Amino acid sequence: MTATITKEDALLQFLLRMGDNTLILGHRVSEWCGHSPILEEDIALANTALDLIGQTQMWLGLAGEVQGEGKSADDLAFLRDAWDFRNVLLTEVPNGDFGRTMMRQFLFDAWHSIILGRLIKSSDARVAEIAAKASKEAAYHLERSGDTVVGLGDGTEESHARMQDALDYLWPYVGEMFACDAADSEMAAAGIAPDPSGLRDEFDALVGRVLTDATLTIPSSKWAHSGGRDGRMHTEHLGHLLTQMQWLQRAYPGCKW
Amino acid sequence: MTATITKEDALLQFLLRMGDNTLILGHRVSEWCGHSPILEEDIALANTALDLIGQTQMWLGLAGEVQGEGKSADDLAFLRDAWDFRNVLLTEVPNGDFGRTMMRQFLFDAWHSIILGRLIKSSDARVAEIAAKASKEAAYHLERSGDTVVGLGDGTEESHARMQDALDYLWPYVGEMFACDAADSEMAAAGIAPDPSGLRDEFDALVGRVLTDATLTIPSSKWAHSGGRDGRMHTEHLGHLLTQMQWLQRAYPGCKW
Repeated sequence: MTATITKEDALLQFLLRMGDNTLILGHRVSEWCGHSPILEEDIALANTALDLIGQTQMWLGLAGEVQGEGKSADDLAFLRDAWDFRNVLLTEVPNGDFGRTMMRQFLFDAWHSIILGRLIKSSDARVAEIAAKASKEAAYHLERSGDTVVGLGDGTEESHARMQDALDYLWPYVGEMFACDAADSEMAAAGIAPDPSGLRDEFDALVGRVLTDATLTIPSSKWAHSGGRDGRMHTEHLGHLLTQMQWLQRAYPGCKW
Repeated sequence: MTATITKEDALLQFLLRMGDNTLILGHRVSEWCGHSPILEEDIALANTALDLIGQTQMWLGLAGEVQGEGKSADDLAFLRDAWDFRNVLLTEVPNGDFGRTMMRQFLFDAWHSIILGRLIKSSDARVAEIAAKASKEAAYHLERSGDTVVGLGDGTEESHARMQDALDYLWPYVGEMFACDAADSEMAAAGIAPDPSGLRDEFDALVGRVLTDATLTIPSSKWAHSGGRDGRMHTEHLGHLLTQMQWLQRAYPGCKW
């Protein structure tokens, strides 16, 4: 990406990134509905998914306004194809087992709660307002997913091994959440959103604390996947997810009920 | 279904049934592409799928003509929803393992080769022409699937057990291929297609011979699922299959390449 980007384009990118993260993760989490190991978790995951979809409505609603092409949040969610999505790859990887889903949720919640805390003080009042609503939900999500990661990591031999596998699998997807490009720099300069790279220390401290309690070992490699948040290259999983997610609007364009 | 149906409606039902069977089974078989246990089988299954899709083109092409609403075979394949499909349920059940896929293929091929043999003598020249082309392919499919059923059924303990499981699972889907309703009676009276119930003895003799060679036991229950060929009730699997199969035409309506 070149270093020149208008403030409007940068804001649109930022909003799509926030909204696509919650949309795609929300859809993934919703896939657990009716399949969770126990009823309590089934309800909790469904509620988490609903929170994320609710946040999506706000982020993509504002993205549609900023874009100025008359598109609603629904239009942006259901009528774009894979290459137009700006979510980090972490949110689109398959659920795997319950442990991997909870580890992914924890890693996302940690980043999410930190960035939303900063966005509450955004110079853009609309962004600040969405962040204020979303941050309460994210804090609760983080409490739940963190507790579950500790419970399963410091649990049985089997649950520990599965959580370590999950962490090993997901860790290379963490770095992308802290990438910074021209759009991010523009947002930071305007005081609208923080430079993501500046959030990493706080994330490492928070995540390190919980994973230590969970008796899990953070992989030493710093290598990270990239391509989702800038739309260069999503995983093969996103297209399949969109095929399922967008079916109704694709088959019955503009339907109302 | 009431006993009164016009000859045109009955012909349309008949053509949709023939074309939807080959379309849905063809799609299912195509799912193996790149995943088969050995390269030879991968190519063979892909070729089977292509044959079935080619037959679909002919059956649904004629169905569109008879319907008289200007719809092409592609329109009928990609723009109908689950409740408008007329395939037997056998064709839409998931592939399962390679053994179950080959058992399903064998049971379908046996019925298919028998009915196509009769349709060659159809009083409708268009039907007779399609049947003449398709029956050569079906005979070859039957030879292959029958040989594979014998090879695996009369193979190792593991392969025998899997083929018996496959037969037990699929047998309740066999009966629907021989159901007869007002549309079938109308087609039989017009000499266009045989009464399906009249094909059962030949099917039982053929299948019994092969399954005996395969050292497999035909389940004793005569109970059969129904609902697919008359569109009353498809399995939950058909909607998922259509979501995948119709994605491109739904996302990019009328696209050309």
